[in-house]
Amino acid sequence: MFQLDEKLAQDSHFVLQGPLCEIRLANDARFPWLILIPHVERLTELHQLDDQQMHQLLQESKRAAAALQQLFQPTKINVANLGNVVRQFHWHVVARFETDAAWPGPIWGNGSPQPYEKGLLEQRLTALREALA
Amino acid sequence: MFQLDEKLAQDSHFVLQGPLCEIRLANDARFPWLILIPHVERLTELHQLDDQQMHQLLQESKRAAAALQQLFQPTKINVANLGNVVRQFHWHVVARFETDAAWPGPIWGNGSPQPYEKGLLEQRLTALREALA
Repeated sequence: MFQLDEKLAQDSHFVLQGPLCEIRLANDARFPWLILIPHVERLTELHQLDDQQMHQLLQESKRAAAALQQLFQPTKINVANLGNVVRQFHWHVVARFETDAAWPGPIWGNGSPQPYEKGLLEQRLTALREALA
Repeated sequence: MFQLDEKLAQDSHFVLQGPLCEIRLANDARFPWLILIPHVERLTELHQLDDQQMHQLLQESKRAAAALQQLFQPTKINVANLGNVVRQFHWHVVARFETDAAWPGPIWGNGSPQPYEKGLLEQRLTALREALA
């Protein structure tokens, strides 16, 4: 049975459950940063998904990107699977700005996460759920 | 008409032309690192591809990952579109190792590229063309 990785659970907040992926918000207020985790057991690599799952992941990624675009009007969307630290497959969809803390470099491993303050977190989760609906 | 970005052209070597993407090898011997550039005009974001193009990109990405897997037996494959520096859409497929220069961090913006020595470059391009064929 699929079980969410403990570190992923700890470092992010549940947004909603899609057809294939659980969508979570990384607990780092420096970047509007969604993480999509397909509920597929023992998945570590993008190419392990079958065609139908791959298509579905990309559909959900597209929806995530559209939600970030609508809410934040970023300069660029970054999408990636790295998984060098947490091996359970997870797909990053991140809104990037020329003014953000890591621009133009990648966000991963850059400085320290800045956890959301409770009010902003609730506001952001609500806005994301509406935009993703 | 599609034209390859100058910086992409300068920082990588042509490997082969796939059905959708030009496949290139990043000129950085620290990482077995392929870059797939769909021949689609004015493309900057993954979600701008239509369903058929998205499917094709992912098929070519899968082939690239399989070739890297076969030739290098990496610990992990990293796949990403960032595009914060070079805006023309390009898709990274990178073989990662626990012993590599950036592990477990991302490769982008990490240290200085180490250009291939001519002999190794020719050897690697030949091996990649065979594995991708």
